[in-house]
Amino acid sequence: MSYFENFMKANQAYVDLHGTAHLPIKPKTRVAIVTCMDSRLHVAQALGLALGDAHILRNAGGRVTEDMIRSLVISQQQLGTREIVVLHHTDCGAQTFKNEEFVAYLNKELGVDVSGQDFLPFTDVVESVRKDMKLLRQSPLIPDDVEISGAVYDVDTGRMTVVK
Amino acid sequence: MSYFENFMKANQAYVDLHGTAHLPIKPKTRVAIVTCMDSRLHVAQALGLALGDAHILRNAGGRVTEDMIRSLVISQQQLGTREIVVLHHTDCGAQTFKNEEFVAYLNKELGVDVSGQDFLPFTDVVESVRKDMKLLRQSPLIPDDVEISGAVYDVDTGRMTVVK
Repeated sequence: MSYFENFMKANQAYVDLHGTAHLPIKPKTRVAIVTCMDSRLHVAQALGLALGDAHILRNAGGRVTEDMIRSLVISQQQLGTREIVVLHHTDCGAQTFKNEEFVAYLNKELGVDVSGQDFLPFTDVVESVRKDMKLLRQSPLIPDDVEISGAVYDVDTGRMTVVK
Repeated sequence: MSYFENFMKANQAYVDLHGTAHLPIKPKTRVAIVTCMDSRLHVAQALGLALGDAHILRNAGGRVTEDMIRSLVISQQQLGTREIVVLHHTDCGAQTFKNEEFVAYLNKELGVDVSGQDFLPFTDVVESVRKDMKLLRQSPLIPDDVEISGAVYDVDTGRMTVVK
């Protein structure tokens, strides 16, 4: 059994409740939120977003990678966003491993050599937010007048704490 | 004024309602959902996900990039997911431009030369889902027994349609 079938059933119920609504392709608040894939963070609920409000970008850790920059450039230059929020969280999967050991594990388990690849783990979640805000500020592809904020989300309480 | 302050206020209201709950770091359904950053898709609601159910990965287009593979490897090998859903959607921002023109625009607007970079636009959303499902199946970092499903989300109706 795959969960995909369950999701399709849940989606049918969502459609029945949702009704048809045509919202613009450009997000209303002009904000892009960069955050983690973690299952204990439902971004729209936790930040009070309505449908159509903001872009939500998520990878392992909520890290600013080349692909994250690609997405933000499209978000800003095609779809009009002007503000970025970097949101990492407590008890993150990116804090559960070290690069060297993980690379060795993948070699053993999957038989794939990914020597030298950075899986972007971190130890201090406040520092990881600061580091990623800095990467955004330094990127020539992100205009200087884009407002950049940072916060840490507590997965137990749901509370966001500002990172300066 | 930044919207970040609004989000922090909305989050305070969320915390007041949320209460403290400790959920495991490993997602309950063992599913990772690969989808787009689009503001008109609230993944948890549309697929009926409870907090703690599934990893949600989002970039521009919901494309399978190197960073998406990095995130999926962490999702699977550190956090136990076994199933992937690729979910693209109608009226996508990735359908609004062509690489060559976008690169020229960025050179002119931002003064940055990103010649040769693929921003991963697409024209046919069913084909883009199929292409990304194929990339996952071909990746040596994704085990062969991982179940991979695909669908297209209609941003006007909220309906998901299966892609085979």
